[in-house]
Amino acid sequence: MRQVPSDLEIAQAHKLIPIKDIAASIGLDEEDIEYYGRYKAKIRLEVLEKFRDRPNGKYIDVTAITPTPLGEGKTVTTIGLTQALGRLGKKAICTLRQPSMGPVFGIKGGAAGGGYSQVVPMEDINIHFTGDIHAVGQAHNLLAAMIDASILHGNPLGLDPLSIMWPRVVDVNDRALRQIVIGLGGRENGYPRETGFDITVASEVMAILALTTGLHDLRKRLGRIVVGYSYSGKPVTAEDLRAAGAMTVILKEAIKPNLVQTLEGQACIMHAGPFANIAHGQCSILADMIALKLADYVVTESGFGADLGMEKFMNIKCRYSGLRPNCVVVTCTVRALKMHGGVGNVVAGKPLPDEILKENVPAVERGCENLAHMIKIAKYFGVPVLVAINQFTTDTPAEIEAIRQKALEAGAEGAYPITVWADGGAGAIDLAKAVVEACEKPTNFQFLYPDHLSIKEKIEILATKVYNAAGVRYEPLAEKKIALFEEHGWGHLPICMAKTHLSISHDPSLKNVPRDYIFPIRDIRASVGAGFLYPLAGAMRTMPGLPSQPAAFKVDIDEQGRTVGLF
Amino acid sequence: MRQVPSDLEIAQAHKLIPIKDIAASIGLDEEDIEYYGRYKAKIRLEVLEKFRDRPNGKYIDVTAITPTPLGEGKTVTTIGLTQALGRLGKKAICTLRQPSMGPVFGIKGGAAGGGYSQVVPMEDINIHFTGDIHAVGQAHNLLAAMIDASILHGNPLGLDPLSIMWPRVVDVNDRALRQIVIGLGGRENGYPRETGFDITVASEVMAILALTTGLHDLRKRLGRIVVGYSYSGKPVTAEDLRAAGAMTVILKEAIKPNLVQTLEGQACIMHAGPFANIAHGQCSILADMIALKLADYVVTESGFGADLGMEKFMNIKCRYSGLRPNCVVVTCTVRALKMHGGVGNVVAGKPLPDEILKENVPAVERGCENLAHMIKIAKYFGVPVLVAINQFTTDTPAEIEAIRQKALEAGAEGAYPITVWADGGAGAIDLAKAVVEACEKPTNFQFLYPDHLSIKEKIEILATKVYNAAGVRYEPLAEKKIALFEEHGWGHLPICMAKTHLSISHDPSLKNVPRDYIFPIRDIRASVGAGFLYPLAGAMRTMPGLPSQPAAFKVDIDEQGRTVGLF
Repeated sequence: MRQVPSDLEIAQAHKLIPIKDIAASIGLDEEDIEYYGRYKAKIRLEVLEKFRDRPNGKYIDVTAITPTPLGEGKTVTTIGLTQALGRLGKKAICTLRQPSMGPVFGIKGGAAGGGYSQVVPMEDINIHFTGDIHAVGQAHNLLAAMIDASILHGNPLGLDPLSIMWPRVVDVNDRALRQIVIGLGGRENGYPRETGFDITVASEVMAILALTTGLHDLRKRLGRIVVGYSYSGKPVTAEDLRAAGAMTVILKEAIKPNLVQTLEGQACIMHAGPFANIAHGQCSILADMIALKLADYVVTESGFGADLGMEKFMNIKCRYSGLRPNCVVVTCTVRALKMHGGVGNVVAGKPLPDEILKENVPAVERGCENLAHMIKIAKYFGVPVLVAINQFTTDTPAEIEAIRQKALEAGAEGAYPITVWADGGAGAIDLAKAVVEACEKPTNFQFLYPDHLSIKEKIEILATKVYNAAGVRYEPLAEKKIALFEEHGWGHLPICMAKTHLSISHDPSLKNVPRDYIFPIRDIRASVGAGFLYPLAGAMRTMPGLPSQPAAFKVDIDEQGRTVGLF
Repeated sequence: MRQVPSDLEIAQAHKLIPIKDIAASIGLDEEDIEYYGRYKAKIRLEVLEKFRDRPNGKYIDVTAITPTPLGEGKTVTTIGLTQALGRLGKKAICTLRQPSMGPVFGIKGGAAGGGYSQVVPMEDINIHFTGDIHAVGQAHNLLAAMIDASILHGNPLGLDPLSIMWPRVVDVNDRALRQIVIGLGGRENGYPRETGFDITVASEVMAILALTTGLHDLRKRLGRIVVGYSYSGKPVTAEDLRAAGAMTVILKEAIKPNLVQTLEGQACIMHAGPFANIAHGQCSILADMIALKLADYVVTESGFGADLGMEKFMNIKCRYSGLRPNCVVVTCTVRALKMHGGVGNVVAGKPLPDEILKENVPAVERGCENLAHMIKIAKYFGVPVLVAINQFTTDTPAEIEAIRQKALEAGAEGAYPITVWADGGAGAIDLAKAVVEACEKPTNFQFLYPDHLSIKEKIEILATKVYNAAGVRYEPLAEKKIALFEEHGWGHLPICMAKTHLSISHDPSLKNVPRDYIFPIRDIRASVGAGFLYPLAGAMRTMPGLPSQPAAFKVDIDEQGRTVGLF
């Protein structure tokens, strides 16, 4: 493989196509879009009506095996595959989540792909983009201020301050705000109470933006947000606080999906970016709905591994959208499979151990158990599965062949090495051809559980079938709240498990396919507006911190005013 | 006067001109602007180079007498006058501050003009606009997070946590965040300390954005921000914390002024919105610099009365921009002059007292002392002064004539009733003609004080000449900090007085022209990045709260998805 320049260098050297022409290439005219500078646009929701009678394109979800802390290249695969479909002459669009600015200035790492499989304009996408995350934060924080103002101004809803579950949010990695006391300074500043800030993308408002199907649906979902309970135990909503209308108006532009482009000139619709543990971790339903009307192939990505992101894609996103995938692509790397096979420990920020760089076919084969499990999960949903092997220069032909064999044994339609980071779309031609073929196969889509099962029944299906556990243990708090949630009539909501992405189980140290263990549920929370319950199987961090040498140290402008040091 | 619909109804019923055509009308082509939707654009800073050799247009500052809590219509006058100049066939642009979203959802009141003298698109301008305020908040809060991270990660700068003067910010009226304790929850969340949130527009970053003359200047000013002191008493800057480069990159789009339009199709450049008490309260220097290259007449507005906003416009903004005004317009109303004349008390949210609606020429005449004082302040700077009488239906010809006489006696070039709220530009034709004439007169511009005077000498000039005080009293804290600031080499900076806008003095209850009193300085603070010192003459609120019936209650979408209830 060639020497590949930095992501920022590639992105800055790239000559972008005016977004007007990208729009035209997918059949959108001037009336359908709103410009944000020369290379970004928002797509008006009216296009859904305009193209209502068109059949949907094929819908491909890119997921992964249980990743190392470095990630296995899902976004790069998603973009590279889209570019490869373009090279086959297919009309393809990728739909992606929007990155959060917190990590951009925290620990190095972008979220717009990498190498020659990026979406651009890279700087804009990583910094502010079209302002959607700011709008989410603004709507979220207005509700927060209205909660404390309501309590101060006579507390007409009888809201119990100790029951409030609605934090504030900021799009910065700021650990000092995780746990705070507000309302100090006497009577005119209100009642002191303990609370905290999450990072904006962890807001339920972001999950709502991602799951909504239109402006009026958005209005309703925002109204259903439960912020706490009254002294008599009644859930208090954003509607009760008379905040949902203003929140909707704040989100009126943010609801429109954003149009950008891949380095090879395909359209990319990038919209919403909910957390992948306490939320479902996917780009918006509206992005997918629109893309499916405009392209023959829509490649989307779900966060983390198939046990987490893809499961939620199927059980939550597809449940609310009514859309059905035609094919799943499971991304893996030789290094991650070796790690699952018991060789080498991958730690973020440290060099890879030597043993992980040397050929070791038996370790790869052992690690393929994890891959096989992911294929099995995808097949529960009745959809054909392909495997993408994100290739590195140290991978050997024997290792690649071992993966291919194991993938086929597990029921995949095929497994293809890809080199999209170094080669762009040209690095995934075989995978793209296989995707086209797989999308012609019949599917037999089904959810893992119907709405009407009890909360515990749903959790148990996930634990045993997806997480390979022998059973579930509920801590007393979880028991109590499950009963309460059923009582409130929220039992019909789908489950959005909050668990580590570094293991199929709840324990990040358990690699490959853990078995014969009990899956523990510590607590359960409700995102009634977004429309899911999220049981907690471990401590989930909703506000990252800055490291001692944050990425922000290196970011600056040069003599010509150009950005430097971003990735 | 006619029945005038609500601001939102007028704005929504108005057929906007595509921003491309507005840009063309002031000589900007596609390369000079970046679209934000159909009716907003950012202007690239390269236009300053492109039009460098053009002479500047005439520069008009709109200010006011000491207002009632309702305001006397400065923004409406600024927009109406611009529209009137347009009706005279002049090429006119108004430059305005961008409104903060906090008040939009707090206490009813927009900041894009009103009636038939508005800038549009009104909804966008009041909600998010082009995201500049969000960018300011993001840059501000990144620095805040980097401060606490630096202390946690070994405190290499020896920053004394008790000395930190850099709060966090949010663009919401949220009184519960005024005084908080952060960093709770144990070692991994850092050191607990007391701090607070300001509203975003009170950030020094906003003042910097308003006072900068270009991207590299912005970079330097951000680096000079002083966030606190080391244990040895050395100022610690954003540069020391290695945050200024990233902050600059975060502000790279926000530095470009925004183009919108008046209801009568003039260009309006709306950019930056610093507080008018703890900061200088003007739109950006860049907005004015660009506008002066593109129009024959540029009408801008300075916050509050001539003693506060106009004085800062002259002594701070013009000092940094090098620009010089050709004319000042002092806005007044009969009701405010009556109040200064001792009749009626105007309270926000309550109906006007009857006595203020009845003819009372003697009261108006007494109140004209305030107007005369404002004219005198403007004339200190060597610039011709005109008076705009923002007319209400209850004003009588005798009252108007009394104002005219008193204005002429005080040295104004003329005084003209205007009805721009009800009539748009047609309501200010006489004023516009007088402005055109006044702008041809020679000016003899001078600052009230040179850079090299001591901090106390500068304060004393302001107190005696502008605030009409007999002297100045410094509290011990102020004495100590003035000495410290001189020692740090900040004595050359201009003074940005933080005082009430409801009186020429420090005391809001002292109406008309207070005299024979001592002006008290409680404390003094430094915005070294923005480039001014701000003495505090009273308690300045930098975070508003929500009232019991916030404007947010009424904001919603209707069946058609249109915004309702905004103003």
